[in-house]
Amino acid sequence: MKLRLGMIGGGEGSFIGAVHRIAARIDDEYELICGVFSSKPDVSKKSGLSIGLPENRVYSTYQELIEKEKQLPANERVQVIGIVTPNNVHFGPAKLALENGFHVILDKPMTLSLAEAKELEKTVKATGNLFALTHTYTGYPMVKEAKQLVKSGKIGKVRKIYVEYPQGWLSTFLEGNSDNKQAAWRADPAKSGIAGAMGDIGTHAFNLAEYVSGLQVTKICADINIVVDDRKLDDDGGILLKYNNGASGVLMASQIAAGEENNIKVRVYGERGSVEWQQCDANTLTVKWLDKPTEIYRTGGSYVSSYASHNTRVPAGHPEGYLEAFANIYRNFALTIKAHAAGQTPQPEWMDFPGIEEGVRGMAFIENAIASGKSDIKWTDFKV
Amino acid sequence: MKLRLGMIGGGEGSFIGAVHRIAARIDDEYELICGVFSSKPDVSKKSGLSIGLPENRVYSTYQELIEKEKQLPANERVQVIGIVTPNNVHFGPAKLALENGFHVILDKPMTLSLAEAKELEKTVKATGNLFALTHTYTGYPMVKEAKQLVKSGKIGKVRKIYVEYPQGWLSTFLEGNSDNKQAAWRADPAKSGIAGAMGDIGTHAFNLAEYVSGLQVTKICADINIVVDDRKLDDDGGILLKYNNGASGVLMASQIAAGEENNIKVRVYGERGSVEWQQCDANTLTVKWLDKPTEIYRTGGSYVSSYASHNTRVPAGHPEGYLEAFANIYRNFALTIKAHAAGQTPQPEWMDFPGIEEGVRGMAFIENAIASGKSDIKWTDFKV
Amino acid sequence: MKLRLGMIGGGEGSFIGAVHRIAARIDDEYELICGVFSSKPDVSKKSGLSIGLPENRVYSTYQELIEKEKQLPANERVQVIGIVTPNNVHFGPAKLALENGFHVILDKPMTLSLAEAKELEKTVKATGNLFALTHTYTGYPMVKEAKQLVKSGKIGKVRKIYVEYPQGWLSTFLEGNSDNKQAAWRADPAKSGIAGAMGDIGTHAFNLAEYVSGLQVTKICADINIVVDDRKLDDDGGILLKYNNGASGVLMASQIAAGEENNIKVRVYGERGSVEWQQCDANTLTVKWLDKPTEIYRTGGSYVSSYASHNTRVPAGHPEGYLEAFANIYRNFALTIKAHAAGQTPQPEWMDFPGIEEGVRGMAFIENAIASGKSDIKWTDFKV
Amino acid sequence: MKLRLGMIGGGEGSFIGAVHRIAARIDDEYELICGVFSSKPDVSKKSGLSIGLPENRVYSTYQELIEKEKQLPANERVQVIGIVTPNNVHFGPAKLALENGFHVILDKPMTLSLAEAKELEKTVKATGNLFALTHTYTGYPMVKEAKQLVKSGKIGKVRKIYVEYPQGWLSTFLEGNSDNKQAAWRADPAKSGIAGAMGDIGTHAFNLAEYVSGLQVTKICADINIVVDDRKLDDDGGILLKYNNGASGVLMASQIAAGEENNIKVRVYGERGSVEWQQCDANTLTVKWLDKPTEIYRTGGSYVSSYASHNTRVPAGHPEGYLEAFANIYRNFALTIKAHAAGQTPQPEWMDFPGIEEGVRGMAFIENAIASGKSDIKWTDFKV
Repeated sequence: MKLRLGMIGGGEGSFIGAVHRIAARIDDEYELICGVFSSKPDVSKKSGLSIGLPENRVYSTYQELIEKEKQLPANERVQVIGIVTPNNVHFGPAKLALENGFHVILDKPMTLSLAEAKELEKTVKATGNLFALTHTYTGYPMVKEAKQLVKSGKIGKVRKIYVEYPQGWLSTFLEGNSDNKQAAWRADPAKSGIAGAMGDIGTHAFNLAEYVSGLQVTKICADINIVVDDRKLDDDGGILLKYNNGASGVLMASQIAAGEENNIKVRVYGERGSVEWQQCDANTLTVKWLDKPTEIYRTGGSYVSSYASHNTRVPAGHPEGYLEAFANIYRNFALTIKAHAAGQTPQPEWMDFPGIEEGVRGMAFIENAIASGKSDIKWTDFKV
Repeated sequence: MKLRLGMIGGGEGSFIGAVHRIAARIDDEYELICGVFSSKPDVSKKSGLSIGLPENRVYSTYQELIEKEKQLPANERVQVIGIVTPNNVHFGPAKLALENGFHVILDKPMTLSLAEAKELEKTVKATGNLFALTHTYTGYPMVKEAKQLVKSGKIGKVRKIYVEYPQGWLSTFLEGNSDNKQAAWRADPAKSGIAGAMGDIGTHAFNLAEYVSGLQVTKICADINIVVDDRKLDDDGGILLKYNNGASGVLMASQIAAGEENNIKVRVYGERGSVEWQQCDANTLTVKWLDKPTEIYRTGGSYVSSYASHNTRVPAGHPEGYLEAFANIYRNFALTIKAHAAGQTPQPEWMDFPGIEEGVRGMAFIENAIASGKSDIKWTDFKV
Repeated sequence: MKLRLGMIGGGEGSFIGAVHRIAARIDDEYELICGVFSSKPDVSKKSGLSIGLPENRVYSTYQELIEKEKQLPANERVQVIGIVTPNNVHFGPAKLALENGFHVILDKPMTLSLAEAKELEKTVKATGNLFALTHTYTGYPMVKEAKQLVKSGKIGKVRKIYVEYPQGWLSTFLEGNSDNKQAAWRADPAKSGIAGAMGDIGTHAFNLAEYVSGLQVTKICADINIVVDDRKLDDDGGILLKYNNGASGVLMASQIAAGEENNIKVRVYGERGSVEWQQCDANTLTVKWLDKPTEIYRTGGSYVSSYASHNTRVPAGHPEGYLEAFANIYRNFALTIKAHAAGQTPQPEWMDFPGIEEGVRGMAFIENAIASGKSDIKWTDFKV
Repeated sequence: MKLRLGMIGGGEGSFIGAVHRIAARIDDEYELICGVFSSKPDVSKKSGLSIGLPENRVYSTYQELIEKEKQLPANERVQVIGIVTPNNVHFGPAKLALENGFHVILDKPMTLSLAEAKELEKTVKATGNLFALTHTYTGYPMVKEAKQLVKSGKIGKVRKIYVEYPQGWLSTFLEGNSDNKQAAWRADPAKSGIAGAMGDIGTHAFNLAEYVSGLQVTKICADINIVVDDRKLDDDGGILLKYNNGASGVLMASQIAAGEENNIKVRVYGERGSVEWQQCDANTLTVKWLDKPTEIYRTGGSYVSSYASHNTRVPAGHPEGYLEAFANIYRNFALTIKAHAAGQTPQPEWMDFPGIEEGVRGMAFIENAIASGKSDIKWTDFKV
């Protein structure tokens, strides 16, 4: 049985809305049955109809969606609500959905502020409903393999972590062009929050480093920049980090790295070896050793862990990409929801998706990074 | 409105059946509404139910499917039939479906023999129904870009074409293991036809070279080998080719290239430059020039042709892979069907999917290659 | 006519001594005619004889070398002195050689301290003798091409610089093994100075970033670590930088990046494009643009600048490597010396080798980095 | 003690002459003491003086060189003669030099015809003097590692060999430009022999495949083309091969592959794994396996064979290139000569350079390939 999915946000002109819908479709675990697709009721209606929803399941506000759906018979009403709005409309619908008995899958960064994030964490715990956050990159099979390999201890204690997310698309003042919705809301503090690049892509880099290493940041020293004239939020940053096992790290995130696409990349160095992954070669994990040949792990290889193979659909050499990584989060969330509903324990591979804790830490990253960027003190404690 | 899709083949243990279903789902142009998933009725039933079909739309034979669906009201009955059976069950259902008013999307190689292929070509032409063949690799945006670049004349007249499809998975006698369905039918002449590797992957390489270059093979000189003991069909081949503009070519296809995944690769050299594409880096097209820097075209680049951009879903740097390439064929087929139904001329980008002519040429490739492999004469005319 | 070369250091067990000698030989601009190869006279003698020098031109101390050579007829005596000793024996012989009329080519880092460096700078200026510092990586043709491309303004104003030098060879306490001379002196403050990794490889990264960008560091915020137990000097660091045009940068240098070889890498991002170079693919320069395909410049390409082509020996595709990059410094130094001797102005391509200014800035980097590493203040001015 | 080297050919305008001289210098095993650098005595004189030879050791003809040097005292006369002339001036000087007691190092292809090659083989055997042929690519450490790995049996019996040498530099009628000496003699049958591309680069590809695999070609089926109008010799070819263990192969060599540099590449597939090497990434050997991660062997790695490490000068990650590969042949030839002179058995690593047998097989390749290209018969025996 497919889970009944509703969507808040993601109407016309949205990039990430379509991505969420494809991701939800790929493994056939969901059926999109309702939604509110815009803050403008007519746009919402038009968007919903254009993707095939019946008119009575396209709503004008998220409050209406939740209220009306709740009144439907249990076997008709929405079960999972996907939220793909700008950051300022994350907390409200997520909280309301959880409180009314729905599971929530939410785009990152989780909320507009760390305070909201902690409040939402309480709601998740209080309601017992399930929650997923779409830090897409941890959905890649070879990222999962990297985590498992570090966890296995084969490369020894982690000593150094490099992570970067270079983009070039905001090298010019794109937000000055009113047609560019993507740039416009991301550059608007009212919709994006206190951070630009740090929120949009820095959080991904931060999350990826913590996920693969299994460590947590404890101290931070940030250089946060607004490079493009007239821009209101940061578009570039370099950050020094300390992790809770004593390892140090460097995080780079930039939206003014002209010519770069979206090549998020992570390297984790241990005592005896290291792992390296980058999105532009997403099906490859490079494992280097002190004293033997470098190994190339590949998606679909017969030798990979269950965490990688569970998240793979086709034989090695047929590349799976971003949409499949995204779909892995949706699929694992569905498998976990169904197991819970059936009173079963989900397999550990299923539960390996980002959730409320990652969301809180991501918001903490944003607030700590921006604060450190303004501080004259070198190292500040990473506060959550 | 989604097109109503039926499926023949692709039940339990099938790899390609699941791929077709994902491909059909990704862009939401189809709804799978019926099927016959196995030659064994109980397996068909079980498979159909497991993917959520209602019992009365899961059939026991393809004949039954076609007959019963035809009797349904026009707005309920299947519109497009996808056929994903072994090669020996391609011609029968495809012909019957076309003759009964259904559009057909068929896995490659198109039929069991060239004679069947030509017969099917006649059926397509006679019925006027639409037909697509899933030569997946031509669905990649950067393969389309390569074709457009060659077509533009920028690299000059084509002089040389290298194409290869190396696999290693049949390096051992896998078909001796009765659990390996994939190997078993591919190595069985009754199901696969007169060719093994040449049919399974040689046809892909042949098609890719003709697609990108815009040329057609006219002469062939083949070295066809059975490398693994006790195997009944070829698992390796090297082929010299002549094309209809005088260019020469080399085609390599092997299933005993130990360690290789599925890195199909094509290079087309013209008078002034060349294009190079390989599946392991599918979102990159390398364009080399006699006297200026090599250029790297990327999926999602602002500078690519409409043929590439039409077949892309996410921004550059978020890799799209094999399933998206497959989905591009499904989507373009749907767009073309809908345009036809609406009495409109499809856009040229929509019609850029492999069809009956490619299928006939692919079967001709198989028969010419196998015949040449047995011949003492060096060059034989490529007969269609 | 070949220049007569003498060498200080580089006897048995030295890695860099042999490299200097090969570099000096490659283009046949030098003849090695004398040297002192060890602080132990018998080792010096043995080393000198083993490489074919006559006994009377192998000396016991650098003072003896300079004194005795000075007494030889002008057409017999050494003209250029190469110094390849540990850091603590750089300043003394370099100063004495310059003061006695010899040109000097010196390994990096230039001296044991910034004070020595500035003193040496005065000596160079006062004597008018020529001086080269072997920051090898700026000898690569594609690094020179990168600099010229940035200088041309094609990528616009520089905004961001990433540079890194990851090594893994000191991941264990190698200096505890008395047979490992390379590790032993580098880890010994008496021979290496106040820095380990920052002096050995951090200076290379610093120099490469300033060379390619044409900018100078003005502020620094460093995280300097000793990772391996019992080690006396830093083996890892991450540094945030500000440059004199307002650009920001990140510098990473580590000797505990397990599995890494010597893949020094630099990326310079401008307003409209960026350049990227890494040693592991040394003959490639990647140039990315905001709105057109990435370009791959290659050593030996017909389109490269005179700075690249002047430093290339063989046609494109025949890789030139580290030894050739090193040789480029030796060759350009020789061409400059000869031009000076002939009263001619050297071509600008010849004078494009690192010299005393780069040496002073390198020592300033070491002292600023180590000081910043110990400081609680975030940004400190880069003092020279 | 350095070996005294003389050179025939390689004067002004020669590319390969300078390469030989650099290769001879790199490891300081030779001293160039005499030569004849052109068939024009004044050009020879000028060239010799310009590289620093005394006037009396620059000769006008190779006969003069050999005659006069032979009359010098044993400790002054030349010991090794390097021959770098066009193909039509290989056999004469090589034979004369060997017959007069000199060791010979000769550029490829070895002679103008197979008959000459066999005659030269007799001379080598009869005189007992030593002979090396500069098939440069077998001098790369990672090519040697590939051979050792295949020889070890780790990848199992060899089944398939792909080798290619794509160049683009003769995509236009360069030989029509009288200033282009490189193109002119290569395209002139009187100087080059019966083959163009097959002789110039096909022989390299053929040699590389036999070297790495340890096998010998037994049958051949060639498609040999003249692509550029008015050209007299082949500039392109595709060849099917059979080897003496039953393996099959494909060889591609082209000088009209527009945009290609000199990326010679070989892949050898065995029963359990494969090795892959290409010049554009010369310090990497990729080893793929049926059922475990791909391994990346690197020049300088602690795990490589003595054949690789013996031919490496600098630590891993500092790339060694074409000139070092060339130098490895010179160095190993010198070490072998010196061991012979001392009555010692050379180490096997020293003797691993191409010699007279490779030269004979290379000439056989040319004659067999050209003959097969003209034949209507598919497979012809490879005749030596």
